[in-house]
This record gives sequence, C-alpha cells and structure tokens, in this order.
Amino acid sequence: MRIGIDIGGTKIVAGIVDNSGKVVVRKKIFVRRHKGYPIVRDAIIQLVRDVLSENTIHIESMDRIGVASAGQIDKEFKKIIFSPNLGWHNVPLRDDIEAALKVHSFVDNDVNAATYGEWRFGAARGADNVLGVFIGTGIGGGIIIHGKVYRGFQNAGAEIGHTTLNPFGYPCNCGNTGCFEAYCGGTYIIERVKKPIESGYRGKIWELINGDMATLNAGHIESGAALGDELCETVWTEVLEYLGAGLASMTNLLNPEIIVLGGGVVYGTRHLIEDVKPILKKRAMAASLKNLKLVKAKLREDAAIIGAAFVEP
Amino acid sequence: MRIGIDIGGTKIVAGIVDNSGKVVVRKKIFVRRHKGYPIVRDAIIQLVRDVLSENTIHIESMDRIGVASAGQIDKEFKKIIFSPNLGWHNVPLRDDIEAALKVHSFVDNDVNAATYGEWRFGAARGADNVLGVFIGTGIGGGIIIHGKVYRGFQNAGAEIGHTTLNPFGYPCNCGNTGCFEAYCGGTYIIERVKKPIESGYRGKIWELINGDMATLNAGHIESGAALGDELCETVWTEVLEYLGAGLASMTNLLNPEIIVLGGGVVYGTRHLIEDVKPILKKRAMAASLKNLKLVKAKLREDAAIIGAAFVEP
Repeated sequence: MRIGIDIGGTKIVAGIVDNSGKVVVRKKIFVRRHKGYPIVRDAIIQLVRDVLSENTIHIESMDRIGVASAGQIDKEFKKIIFSPNLGWHNVPLRDDIEAALKVHSFVDNDVNAATYGEWRFGAARGADNVLGVFIGTGIGGGIIIHGKVYRGFQNAGAEIGHTTLNPFGYPCNCGNTGCFEAYCGGTYIIERVKKPIESGYRGKIWELINGDMATLNAGHIESGAALGDELCETVWTEVLEYLGAGLASMTNLLNPEIIVLGGGVVYGTRHLIEDVKPILKKRAMAASLKNLKLVKAKLREDAAIIGAAFVEP
Repeated sequence: MRIGIDIGGTKIVAGIVDNSGKVVVRKKIFVRRHKGYPIVRDAIIQLVRDVLSENTIHIESMDRIGVASAGQIDKEFKKIIFSPNLGWHNVPLRDDIEAALKVHSFVDNDVNAATYGEWRFGAARGADNVLGVFIGTGIGGGIIIHGKVYRGFQNAGAEIGHTTLNPFGYPCNCGNTGCFEAYCGGTYIIERVKKPIESGYRGKIWELINGDMATLNAGHIESGAALGDELCETVWTEVLEYLGAGLASMTNLLNPEIIVLGGGVVYGTRHLIEDVKPILKKRAMAASLKNLKLVKAKLREDAAIIGAAFVEP
C-alpha cells in the first residue's frame, strides 16, 4: 500500500491507496497559507501518522508516500520550487517527510499526478498518448507518452493553461495575455459574469444563485445560458468556443489517443463535453481527430492522491 | 553511407550522406505534380541511380534510403497517406523504392526529418527536448524528446503550424481559423502585403521589389518595415508579435531545452530571431524560459535530407 497526499490551497488530503489504485481511507485537514512552511509541513506529517493510526495500519507496510502539489517541482522530485497555493519557495518537502516518517517519498506536480492516475487507473487506462486537461480555478495540463509523464527540460512542461489562444486577449495571472486559462479557467469565467451582476445586471442567473453571489459557479452559468440568460449565453458560448479551439490546437500538436477532461468546471457542468465535441471536430485536423477519444476524468477528487502514490520520474 | 531524399512541391533532391551527417553530393530534379505517382516515383528511383553512378558509388555501400515528404506518413513509415505537395494519397513509396533498389528504406514527414537532422548533426545537437519550427510557405513543427521524434497516436503530431493563435482570426488552408501558420507562414504573410499593393498601395516596398510582385518575399517585408513602409510595418509587427506569442505558447507547453527556427522566412530575413526574443521573453513563463535556447537551424536545405537518412521510428 501507498500514501498519496494532495496539497490544495485550503485543504490537504491524505489517502491510503491499495495496489489496485483504490483509496481505502482518506483524511483531510484545513490549512491557512499564512502559517508558513514548517507548521504546514509538520501538519502534513501528523496527518499521515493520524490516518495510519486511526485505521490501525503500520507505517512499515507503506511502499511510498507520494505528494501532489500545484506549482513547479525540482528535477529530483524533492522540492517544491514554487507553490502558488501556499506561497512556498524551494521547500524540501520530500527530504523532510522521509526524515520524519522513514518511508520513500516523492513530490510531483498535482496535475501531472492526476493525469498519471487517470492513465494508470482511470479514464485513460493504458492509452499511449494521453492529454489531461483539468479545469478548476485555472487550467492545468498533463501529458503522458508511452506511460511516462512528459516533463520538459526544467520539469516545467505541460502548462496547457498557459498556451495562447489570443495574443491580445484577456489578461492572465501569469502576466501574459490571452492564455487558455484566461478564457476557460473557473475563476476567470465566473469573474466575467460576476462583474455585470455587481453592476446591476439581473437575469435568470440572479434567480439561479438566489441572489447569493458567493455560490456562483460554472454550473450556474451553463444553466443560465440554457435558460436564455443573455449574459450567461454570451459568456458560455465564448467558453465553449475557446475550449473547443484550445483542445483542437492541442489535438493538432500532440495527436493524443485520448483527452481526459477533469476539474471542478467539468464535474460541475452537465453538457460541457458533448457541447465542446462539435467545436473540436470543426476545428481540428482530420488526421489527428481520427479515433480521438474525449472523455471525462473518472477518479475525481482522488486523481491526484492516486497519481501521487504511483507516479514515476 | 546513406541516401536522403527530400520531396518538395517543385523539386526533389537526393543527397549521399556520410556517417558524420555531411551531404557529400546531391542531385536535383524538377517535378510537375500533375504527372501522377508512378511517373514521379520512377523519376525518384532514377534520381538515386543517377546520383550514385555519376559519382561512381555502388548502391551496395548504402545502408538506407530515407525519404522526407510533406504530409502524413503511416505508422509503419511505408506510405505517404497524404502529400499536399504532390496530391498523393496512400502511395507505397517505401516498398516501391525497396523493390527497385534493394536497399532498406524509410519514409518520414519532412519536418520531423529536418528537426531530427538538426538534433543529430545541427543546431540542436544532443539536446534533450527539442522543438523545431520551420517557417516556409506554411509552418511545420518537429518535436524530439530524448532523441526520439514525438509522433502522436496516429503519426500526425507536431502540427505546430495548426495550433490556434486566435479562434476568430485569419482563415487557414486547413479549414480552421487563426492557426499559427495563418499568421506567420510565408504565403500568408506575403498575401497580406500583396493585396494592398495590387489595390494600388505604393510605398518603400514597391521600390524594394522594383515593381516586380513575383519577387516579393518576407525579407522585403522586414526591410520595408525597417525603412518605415507603413504597410510592411503593420504586417511585420503583427508577424513578430504572433510568432513570439506562438513560441511562448509552445515554450509553456513543452518546456523545450532548445527551439530551432528554420525555413525560408527565417533564412530570408535578417533580424527575425533577435526581434522575436523580447516578445517570447515577455510572454512565456519564467520557469520554462530559464536556460531556453532559441537558435537558427544550421543544416539549411540539407536538414530534411540528412534527417531522412538517419531518423528512426
């Protein structure tokens, strides 16, 4: 058995994963990023001890502890070079975990881990060329070629969210303009509906969220568009068109066997995949479209935990 | 020694390549695409016989005949599934050459071959992650990962020219809109200057081409822009900005060690690489930019010949 840990912006989840890729038990803690690395690291180590002891499992039976984190990981899979979630720079998480728990550990990027999980145990099982596109607050990407994660020269590859869809388009948090993420990432989509509402726009969307802006998500925008809310129609049409264009672009470049779509925006909407298929089909080249599969991720919230437990360099 | 053959739209070049990747001799024939496959194939076979006999080299001393062609090649590297240059569909060029000449043969996409050539003997020698971007009439791409050509699931990958830079941008010959190629490919660039001239525009560019539209190329447009020709300034500024954005996009996605720029537009202009560097730097993410090299291809017209002679599946 193995342990997989998913470090998010607000919560950290540790799961015990069996050899079939099933999360047997999981435990969650909430963290505040302002607490700083030593405190959060110690909380992670305690979380592992707790999930084991609460289930009366000995740490000696663990083959590895895999950690998934947003951000860039060093080439030796020891340090988180930069974590946007927690504001960490160059933290030696792998060595610290190994020193405390005496189990072989491994740190990887969360989307690489999630895509690997989907390839090994999920929706892309066994496929030769896999593209993972995870649309949450932003967009993360993972590429698996012949069972190995494609990492690039500096371990910084697969930033699909920061491929360009319009050099003079919406500003992106990365500093560039017109990134895939700036068109289709959850935070950006919601922002484009939120602003007009804050300025007084009232349509079906206002009813859908019961006037509570804090609940507004991509699912509401999709529903609003279906109900004829003008603002939602404009925003959602654009989201689908850019998502289709972005996937077509990646299809032409990578000619994947399968594209796995995951993340909150994908799970929280109803027709995203079927609605984007005709746009992808219209835009991508026939040679790359042939036999391409476009599917929803299967492992959901467990993808990064499972992937982290098994992923290799 | 090996033979490399580069099948272009108007000419076919065969070269004898030594084991250091040098083209020792080359011979060229012109073809007309309307002649059809059997006639052109026989001309290629005769071309090989001629280049050998004229240099008194025995065919028995050849280790392989490698053929580079535009278009998609089948997964066994035997057939050209579609050649846009010659209008061929599913032609069994490898088997035909082997039957006639009794030498092990291999057919590959020309840009894959050229990028492989640059990796093995040229500007990207020995690099781990190579992105080749060849800007001729269109834009072709090649990706080399750990010394192997990245081909994708259907052998249709690396179509960098058909990544999207604006879903609602210029129409592309592939049927999509806003492809990288439609912004930065030679034919498309020239068209955007040609049309206004045909409609009566007269600026510095008119002097640069001595009023002869047939000579108009990317070099003239770059020079025109430098001399303050308004039309050229507008077009060339856009070309550089989109090229920089496209390279930044690929840098974020692939995190290559080196980007090799080749093709007629690159060789025929003076400052393209230095002018695009600051745009790439402004747009790409710091983690992927770190230690990235952006260089001009070295093997020029021989790249595909040399690559075809050595490239592996």
